[in-house]
Amino acid sequence: MVSDLHLELAGAGGRRAALIRALRDAVRGGRLAPGTRLPPYRSLAADLGIARNTVADAYAELVAEGWLTARQGSGTRVAPRADPPPPRRTGAPATQRESAPRPVHNLLQGQPDAAAFPRTAWLASARRALTAAPSEAFGPGDPYGRPELRRALADYLSRARGVRTGPDRIVICSGFAHALRLLSGTSALRRTVAVEAYGLGFHRSLLADAGIRTVPLPLDEHGARTEELATRRDLRGVTTVLLTPAHQFPTGGPLRPERRATAVDWARAGGGLIVEDDYDGEFRYDRRPVGAVQGLDPERVLYVGSVSKSLSPALRLGWMVLPDALVDEVLAAKGEREAWASALDQLTLADFLESGGYDRHVRRARQRYRRRRDQLVAALAERAPHVRVSGIAAGLHAVLALPPGTERSAVRAAARQGLALDGLAAFRHPDATGPAHDGLVVGYAAPPDHAFAEALDALCRALPPGAVPR
Amino acid sequence: MVSDLHLELAGAGGRRAALIRALRDAVRGGRLAPGTRLPPYRSLAADLGIARNTVADAYAELVAEGWLTARQGSGTRVAPRADPPPPRRTGAPATQRESAPRPVHNLLQGQPDAAAFPRTAWLASARRALTAAPSEAFGPGDPYGRPELRRALADYLSRARGVRTGPDRIVICSGFAHALRLLSGTSALRRTVAVEAYGLGFHRSLLADAGIRTVPLPLDEHGARTEELATRRDLRGVTTVLLTPAHQFPTGGPLRPERRATAVDWARAGGGLIVEDDYDGEFRYDRRPVGAVQGLDPERVLYVGSVSKSLSPALRLGWMVLPDALVDEVLAAKGEREAWASALDQLTLADFLESGGYDRHVRRARQRYRRRRDQLVAALAERAPHVRVSGIAAGLHAVLALPPGTERSAVRAAARQGLALDGLAAFRHPDATGPAHDGLVVGYAAPPDHAFAEALDALCRALPPGAVPR
Repeated sequence: MVSDLHLELAGAGGRRAALIRALRDAVRGGRLAPGTRLPPYRSLAADLGIARNTVADAYAELVAEGWLTARQGSGTRVAPRADPPPPRRTGAPATQRESAPRPVHNLLQGQPDAAAFPRTAWLASARRALTAAPSEAFGPGDPYGRPELRRALADYLSRARGVRTGPDRIVICSGFAHALRLLSGTSALRRTVAVEAYGLGFHRSLLADAGIRTVPLPLDEHGARTEELATRRDLRGVTTVLLTPAHQFPTGGPLRPERRATAVDWARAGGGLIVEDDYDGEFRYDRRPVGAVQGLDPERVLYVGSVSKSLSPALRLGWMVLPDALVDEVLAAKGEREAWASALDQLTLADFLESGGYDRHVRRARQRYRRRRDQLVAALAERAPHVRVSGIAAGLHAVLALPPGTERSAVRAAARQGLALDGLAAFRHPDATGPAHDGLVVGYAAPPDHAFAEALDALCRALPPGAVPR
Repeated sequence: MVSDLHLELAGAGGRRAALIRALRDAVRGGRLAPGTRLPPYRSLAADLGIARNTVADAYAELVAEGWLTARQGSGTRVAPRADPPPPRRTGAPATQRESAPRPVHNLLQGQPDAAAFPRTAWLASARRALTAAPSEAFGPGDPYGRPELRRALADYLSRARGVRTGPDRIVICSGFAHALRLLSGTSALRRTVAVEAYGLGFHRSLLADAGIRTVPLPLDEHGARTEELATRRDLRGVTTVLLTPAHQFPTGGPLRPERRATAVDWARAGGGLIVEDDYDGEFRYDRRPVGAVQGLDPERVLYVGSVSKSLSPALRLGWMVLPDALVDEVLAAKGEREAWASALDQLTLADFLESGGYDRHVRRARQRYRRRRDQLVAALAERAPHVRVSGIAAGLHAVLALPPGTERSAVRAAARQGLALDGLAAFRHPDATGPAHDGLVVGYAAPPDHAFAEALDALCRALPPGAVPR
């Protein structure tokens, strides 16, 4: 038995709460070892100068929580704890993984500035949203998503992105990849799909895993050559195309107006579908936003967006704006209940959109990223004037064109400089036939402010010298 | 042009902020229609008695947000809004769906009391967690899950459920169904899996969709007959079994200690695996919690839990405690980055666990559900003494045994009384060979307090009269 149990009864909530806290901390911290017998109520009560019932209540509570055990005849003891099994044999444990050597500067595309997450404004929205939510919001969720969020999105997407929709065509998901997975089970994505010749390999793999073949559509500085949808032999019979119209990913051009119209005409003529990935529609710097293609024909364009770039990829929230004919099919693919997206985050995002918090955050982020982009362009103009920069009118990354044959060595040189970034080759469709371009895809949003100048410095050192690329 | 634009500049944040708010509200509310030209800076400034720059700033901000447009020569106008497409032709829109006629009382199993979600305590945890979180928490997530949550879970599961684990064997997911989907891609779930003869059809369908056949294991009041794992011909070569040891779902018995040991011996002997679904391990009323089978052999038992019953299914948070050999495989199945679980909710849950908020919530919920269960048992004892109630030592539902052949009519009678509930037949494996039992599965957690007595009343009216069942 512990005969001299020293406990400090401090803090809020009365003596009972203070005693519970003190005992719990003593057990958790190891000061009271498993199996240790605690003093009887009366003696601890006398020691601490409190009522016997207070001690009895505190013991009972800690028994209920599993910290203590009480057995007839053997008094109250510290509960035995399940010993953890030996640490993992293979692979590094999580904590080691996290501290493993990493590149010093993160210039990977597609990552927003994590340090800029608007914590205070988000918490204020969470407080308002969770306080106002009806009880049913905490029950099993509708696969549609929360009505509050779908209403707020219909309003926002109409105003900011020119999307034509009501809340009843919006289905919530956890991001673009989730949308692809869900659509792979529906008539939206049939056996073969046209994709841009440069794009995210991860998306192509997702489709391949679902048994869907992708055929590359050539592109140039004006985006995907949509006029070839109707003419290429290898696209005969293909009725779905994935496009990134606001800002071709990763090469950076916006899809020309006439090519938008061509794509929509193609879809209309053949009962086809455009899946529009509006992955960074909010971040356009040099002119008015380019509206969504979806606005041209809501029945032929399936619009997908998320907060992953605009707010944070940690939230896992995205949305699909669906043609009427696909809503029921996509809801069926999601299942009877919401299995993925947190209703609490959905409610918070709805408030964040409606209260203007999202607009404010995007505007600030746009200013910050534009400043970053300008710094990048200025550094290159000064120290590597032979390198052409493109894709900088929008987004969170730029493409640095390199002399033919120098990309691989430039990526390696960047790694030696402690830079994490990708070459253009990493994004090229394996079946693409057009000319390959050497280049680096440089994300400029992720590094913290204090480290950005140094990152640019390291980047300039990694670039191949001289000779203007073709 | 609007000549007499009446605006009230009220509220916090200075005149600029007040003007922005007033203009935004006027556009949003329709008082300023799309295309309407706004007064020039100077005239509005004079009208309102504020500086011209303040008006110019406010217009610029609203242009950036997409509410207004500014074009050389045509002044500032209210932006055209994308008209929504006509409402959906097929199916009912979400808002109608939600108000469609529903049963008056929800006695479906598996749903906690949504009204009891601890909003204030959760928000306090969110505030602490988001304030303390490192910046990287708002970047792309590790598929492992947040280290804060894995540490808190290792501590909690060891203390409250007797699980033997360190944080490096815990992988976060969005619930049991997500765990099944992820495991379907690994060696944990091979071609054929043994399941309990009664269980959730949804889980069987998930496995079937992944190409996995399920073979039913008979059960009785002591849980699954695990001694048959080694002897049944149709289980020859099967190395994985799914069990609900704490409280067989839905029939309600805890798995007997010797049957637990038998299952673990079977797994050890044949390189097999037990997948332990601890779906309501926290809710045991009549004696000390039954610990997890995982504690017997962490290398042979894969433990899965979630907050769906204990806190809320709206959170979409669960966890797998994995044998060492499976950790890397499951992480690979999740992908390079966290694609599902919200990091913000993960951080909040970690704080909720560590601050004692989770313990407090579970204890209160346990008291509430036990009271509900006692009311149910008392109502049946008085008004339908011929109906045997079982599975009531734990969980959120009870099983009411019915005379053979009366289940279907009882379920129909319940529907006529406005009750949503299932019969036992809904949970029976289609290939089960043992005797089928007639019964109702009655969830008692979901109805709001004020409606519970009425729900019990309706239930008693729906039960078949007389005759003690076999």
